[in-house]
Amino acid sequence: MSAKPSLRPELRRDPVMGRWVIVSPARAKRPSEFKSKSPSPGPTLPYSDTCPFCSGNEHLCAPEIFRVPPEPGEGWKVRVIENLYPALDRNCKSDGEGGGEDGAVLPGFGFHDVVIETPVHSVNLSGMSGSEIGAVIGAWTRRVLDISSSHEIKYVQVFKNHGASAGASLSHSHSQIIALPVVPSDVAARIHSMKENFGRTGRCCLCNHPDKELVVSESAHFISYVPFAATHPFEIWIVPRDHSPHFHELDNDKAADLGSLLKLMLRKLAVQLNDPPFNFMIQTSPLQNTASLSPYCHWFLQIIPQLTIVGGFEVATGCYINPVFSEDAAKVLRDVDIL
Amino acid sequence: MSAKPSLRPELRRDPVMGRWVIVSPARAKRPSEFKSKSPSPGPTLPYSDTCPFCSGNEHLCAPEIFRVPPEPGEGWKVRVIENLYPALDRNCKSDGEGGGEDGAVLPGFGFHDVVIETPVHSVNLSGMSGSEIGAVIGAWTRRVLDISSSHEIKYVQVFKNHGASAGASLSHSHSQIIALPVVPSDVAARIHSMKENFGRTGRCCLCNHPDKELVVSESAHFISYVPFAATHPFEIWIVPRDHSPHFHELDNDKAADLGSLLKLMLRKLAVQLNDPPFNFMIQTSPLQNTASLSPYCHWFLQIIPQLTIVGGFEVATGCYINPVFSEDAAKVLRDVDIL
Ligand SMILES: Nc1ncnc2c1ncn2[C@@H]1O[C@H](COP(=O)(O)OP(=O)(O)O[C@H]2O[C@H](CO)[C@@H](O)[C@H](O)[C@H]2O)[C@@H](O)[C@H]1O
Ligand SMILES: Nc1ncnc2c1ncn2[C@@H]1O[C@H](COP(=O)(O)OP(=O)(O)O[C@H]2O[C@H](CO)[C@@H](O)[C@H](O)[C@H]2O)[C@@H](O)[C@H]1O
Repeated sequence: MSAKPSLRPELRRDPVMGRWVIVSPARAKRPSEFKSKSPSPGPTLPYSDTCPFCSGNEHLCAPEIFRVPPEPGEGWKVRVIENLYPALDRNCKSDGEGGGEDGAVLPGFGFHDVVIETPVHSVNLSGMSGSEIGAVIGAWTRRVLDISSSHEIKYVQVFKNHGASAGASLSHSHSQIIALPVVPSDVAARIHSMKENFGRTGRCCLCNHPDKELVVSESAHFISYVPFAATHPFEIWIVPRDHSPHFHELDNDKAADLGSLLKLMLRKLAVQLNDPPFNFMIQTSPLQNTASLSPYCHWFLQIIPQLTIVGGFEVATGCYINPVFSEDAAKVLRDVDIL
Repeated sequence: MSAKPSLRPELRRDPVMGRWVIVSPARAKRPSEFKSKSPSPGPTLPYSDTCPFCSGNEHLCAPEIFRVPPEPGEGWKVRVIENLYPALDRNCKSDGEGGGEDGAVLPGFGFHDVVIETPVHSVNLSGMSGSEIGAVIGAWTRRVLDISSSHEIKYVQVFKNHGASAGASLSHSHSQIIALPVVPSDVAARIHSMKENFGRTGRCCLCNHPDKELVVSESAHFISYVPFAATHPFEIWIVPRDHSPHFHELDNDKAADLGSLLKLMLRKLAVQLNDPPFNFMIQTSPLQNTASLSPYCHWFLQIIPQLTIVGGFEVATGCYINPVFSEDAAKVLRDVDIL
């Protein structure tokens, strides 16, 4: 693989997601010129009296699940609370598949929580220290671990929306956790693709280290890189070096190490791309059939800066048109200096 | 199935897409109060001298493939042209899968065309007559038919972006056609799901008529309805009554009939939802293995008004959170009077 001299498009298939991507550099400006058109640096004031997530406004929130550290009062660093407008209802019980002849219906049982990442309105994840971010990650793992004891739950999604055009309705730094009684289709497709790849090659496709050209940075326990078949310009994956199917088995040391690398990636994206809106997601494995999933499932954290608008083609096909070659995005990101 | 008295969420699985959706009415206002926040009524002037798609500006365009009617000059009604910034390249040849050990790579061979739906800058599809829209649909079928003679092409996607937040970069009414040398993942998943459903029930899941509550309108050859497990509020499917795997086999009579029903649906969405941005897509079948696909594949047209923003949860899982029950959306749309 070498830097593309031409503007010829390519089709690339991702072995993890099992999905084709069109890389089409003719559709865009030069990789180094990409900037966000809707920069989302986050709030500037340390406190907002209408923000339910600010320290002092805890009474505006739905019930707390836990806080870190656990002492009551305003000295918390991270709070995990129920979502006030939950997508799924923790009080209605799942009772197996039912409904029409073709379609299946289930009661909307599940958990939907919010993780308030800082008590301070104006602090972003990328402005926190590696160990502070590690504490946020530790709150995710702890909550997922708790939820995984519920036998009705089949999959837990941890995700973050940053910036209005990435879906965020509140600007105070937060992430979310949704636990479902079904395995969502894209998760099933990912697991299927990793299994198929394992069957063919005898190896986990995320234990294979990426080509050096794609790597952005490394830490003791993680590698961050632009995936070969990235769906979006400047998409980054942070992958644990050790094979591990489930995110929630991460220990505190590794959480702090991940915190530092995540911080570095978010800083690089913010500096290079002008504070773009972004989503990140923990891509982990379903909670059941763990023994059979273990050999080929490997969790990772996926970061997608939202720089382009999805059109009918992507909605219809699931095939993304990425105007930037992954090798070029990785080089640009490697070269951003963060002091 | 009856109108939901409560605000309890539900999980619904679509048999065509093979995908779970969360219906979560607690997350939104009442169905009848949904309005677009970025209305896209389209341009108001009949001509723009910088618009490449306007009659008189044909010299600004990439090469023409054909026009309707075929006579040269400015009297055309529909033009099919090459896309000036094509995602795929019609001049590089596909040469089978290659590339790395895990990922597959193909040269970006394919077709990417634009269909200019009207010579007049200020005319929208919904402002055209049923038979004029029928002529646009006829241009799509004719072009797909031409392309399908290329043996390297495995799938052809017809789609439309209307409004900037649905991806449209030009406001003059147009649609696009992208022809690929691979079957995209979501298309493969749809075909797989329809096949699985056929195996289980012995019937094509789109030959089954939808529950009356979901129907918006009907014509001689088509039914339009909100799918039971709609991914987006006010999503509409227009499904041919007769079983048919491939869109491009549509004849002119049926194209005109579809044109009228499509017009009615676009008018209803525009009136009810305040000219929302939208995408529509022809969900058809791959071009190969036609004999084996035929029993269970049934093409349809999918319309998605873009009223909500996709967040990290949907990006990660492919599971959409729809705040509006399909029965409620269908009732609202049935009740909109179009004069
Ligand atoms: N003079 C000319 N002659 C011929 N063609 C010309 C032309 N000038 C412009 N064009 C082409 O006309 C097309 C207009 O298409 P749209 O406005 O529907 O969306 P676009 O393809 O830009 O991207 C949207 O749709 C795609 C596919 O869904 C998404 O990848 C993307 O993010 C989203 O913004 C463009 O593809 C453009 O290349
Ligand atoms: N006082 C309070 N106490 C507790 N919780 C409170 C609260 N006030 C608000 N909340 C909750 O806080 C959450 C904030 O989440 P985000 O801003 O990341 O995105 P949101 O979930 O709104 O939707 C985005 O993400 C979802 C999931 O990806 C998409 O479906 C959607 O379209 C997109 O806009 C909301 O879910 C809200 O319900």
